[in-house]
Amino acid sequence: MQYKQGALSNITILDLTRVLAGPYCTMILADMGANVIKIEIPKKGDDTRQYGPFKNGESMYYANVNRSKKSITLNLKSEEGRKIFLEMVKKADVVVENYRPGVMDKLGVGYDVINKVNDRIVYVAISGFGSYGPYSDRPGYDIIAQAMGGLMAYTGWPETGPTRSGNAMGDVLGGMNGAIGILAALNGRNVTGKGQRVDISLVDGIAAALENGIVRYEATGKVPERTGNRYSTLYPYDSFEAKDGQYVLGCGNQKLWEIFAKLAGMEELITDERYIDGPKRLEHFEELREKINDWSKNYLVEDVVKLILDAGVPAAPIYDMEKLVKDEHIAKAREMFVPLKHPVIGDMHVIGDAVKLMGTKNGVRWPAPSLGEHNSEVYRELLGFDGDKLKELEDNGVI
Amino acid sequence: MQYKQGALSNITILDLTRVLAGPYCTMILADMGANVIKIEIPKKGDDTRQYGPFKNGESMYYANVNRSKKSITLNLKSEEGRKIFLEMVKKADVVVENYRPGVMDKLGVGYDVINKVNDRIVYVAISGFGSYGPYSDRPGYDIIAQAMGGLMAYTGWPETGPTRSGNAMGDVLGGMNGAIGILAALNGRNVTGKGQRVDISLVDGIAAALENGIVRYEATGKVPERTGNRYSTLYPYDSFEAKDGQYVLGCGNQKLWEIFAKLAGMEELITDERYIDGPKRLEHFEELREKINDWSKNYLVEDVVKLILDAGVPAAPIYDMEKLVKDEHIAKAREMFVPLKHPVIGDMHVIGDAVKLMGTKNGVRWPAPSLGEHNSEVYRELLGFDGDKLKELEDNGVI
Repeated sequence: MQYKQGALSNITILDLTRVLAGPYCTMILADMGANVIKIEIPKKGDDTRQYGPFKNGESMYYANVNRSKKSITLNLKSEEGRKIFLEMVKKADVVVENYRPGVMDKLGVGYDVINKVNDRIVYVAISGFGSYGPYSDRPGYDIIAQAMGGLMAYTGWPETGPTRSGNAMGDVLGGMNGAIGILAALNGRNVTGKGQRVDISLVDGIAAALENGIVRYEATGKVPERTGNRYSTLYPYDSFEAKDGQYVLGCGNQKLWEIFAKLAGMEELITDERYIDGPKRLEHFEELREKINDWSKNYLVEDVVKLILDAGVPAAPIYDMEKLVKDEHIAKAREMFVPLKHPVIGDMHVIGDAVKLMGTKNGVRWPAPSLGEHNSEVYRELLGFDGDKLKELEDNGVI
Repeated sequence: MQYKQGALSNITILDLTRVLAGPYCTMILADMGANVIKIEIPKKGDDTRQYGPFKNGESMYYANVNRSKKSITLNLKSEEGRKIFLEMVKKADVVVENYRPGVMDKLGVGYDVINKVNDRIVYVAISGFGSYGPYSDRPGYDIIAQAMGGLMAYTGWPETGPTRSGNAMGDVLGGMNGAIGILAALNGRNVTGKGQRVDISLVDGIAAALENGIVRYEATGKVPERTGNRYSTLYPYDSFEAKDGQYVLGCGNQKLWEIFAKLAGMEELITDERYIDGPKRLEHFEELREKINDWSKNYLVEDVVKLILDAGVPAAPIYDMEKLVKDEHIAKAREMFVPLKHPVIGDMHVIGDAVKLMGTKNGVRWPAPSLGEHNSEVYRELLGFDGDKLKELEDNGVI
């Protein structure tokens, strides 16, 4: 059964977020049908409207993560703007913001005020260090979260030192945690009858992503070494060399290793004391890596990966952006790069959705809005404002 | 208001997942109060019960990501096991599994069968490449997803080549996407009255995490270069050297750069043509990096970070696991490493929750279960089985 509605089509979100972590959160929810009303500063808007890359003078950065949302303008620093915002809070389910802790209170629209106006509101704040704890006042960019959350120290090579994830992983995890928080609290409203506050920190998100790192550290008392692409518990599970580039190979257990060794003409290694089991292969991983490279350097990446996969052993090419956007599985079948016609930019692609809801409508709904594009629609629908009222608010710099 | 209930305390999840991505997903939901019933193979259980590190013979790996869940045993390959599972499906809200696509169908408990038994079920499948598309049959370990999803090519240094994230980021993102999918589909049930299937792929999760990578590639036609710790659009936003290690500094705009330059005794650089604006500083980043290193090498990491932060410029130490677990903000105030007494392991820590629900009860509820620990409780509650029935099922190898 395929429904016309989105899974979140009964949810209205007032979205005060800017830049990346917050907009990434509401992007996920907007594509699932939530009515995401992005509230931007009059005349200026989200900072990322000024971020490159640009096409026809329009930011592709903004266009990517703000599709499927509505844009209205509102000056929260004006008393009338504040009142209008609180009127909208009465009609909404969720408020989400990623200001530094304290800014919403200073604007007179902190959680206590919002909760008094509508106690069913789910209020989500996303910040670098969260709204409580000794560092909560510190500025928290992505690189700060990756550094203090422990991911950088864990990533990279023995000779390079700590290495950050090439994407803004702190922002991405923060945005995803925001989405989880909003959805969990919406369900919680069915349990308690009330909304609640949800506090998201980019640093928490990075730390939580370390998964079993903490138990390995606790068991050994040793800080994990940086091992490049190999895993520290078994081998061969690493990147290797082919004629035209690198590929990865994952012999996750003894059986897979034995299949691979036969395939690669290394059958004699299976009974060789130096490679007899996982720990032994790990001990001699440098020699083994060289042997595997010597074998696979005779093949193109495409061919060696096919050969290994056909034998039933996990392997993959290492895709760069170019290969990724052309791939028949990732780009085409899984729709991870969605073609979109933006009214100013023209034809472009935006990042696709990783959560595939197979029953309700899900996916990019419309291009990112121009600044205040939905003022008339949203203010009329939610608050009944007519054209004269909107003109007056505009003249007074409120919207 | 602090409620005694968890936000998901009205939700029962039948959890067939093993290893990391699936269990990470249900860990998040169990800590929020969901009734997560982990269904394990009799006598054997989740593979990770055999994964190190061990303490007192018990897996700390399993103990970390399976706290707050119940464990029951059930042999889905037996006809009676299959029937019992489908009886439980009638009483549940969610089924989640991370087998290879097709396995559930082969077991006779695929989505079509489950949906016929209970059309309100949310069914989430997590796999390497997803359940459709040309590569859906391929095995999908974490390293495969990091390689093909584009993250490795994007991470690392000009001289190292593609670099994987030190944690199992493919599994973590897959698990988080699973949680988002479950929660969104539960809300969708309020919209449509029916459950639905949700399809999660580790590769999709990695690709979606590349955020604006695709628009940068589309705008320039250039595959992004690996830039180590610096960002490719502004400078100084990178890691630097102190007397006893590295730290990160993020001058996100011109104002922050000017404050920093004055602080570091480089005031003359502010008007120097070579460093006059973002693009110029980026062009000369190597010289600027050296100047900044020369300055900060006179200080300890702790002192230079404090100095920079006090001036209002974003900076942070690069934490390894040891510093992380001792930190007063991350470990203590934000509770990212939770002390837990496990009946066999004894005192240990588990990873904390990144989503802080401030109203409903949230957090680690109890230690990971022993195999089948909750057989009696769960089978009695859900299906009314008595002791004799359980004994019979056990004797027949069904549980």
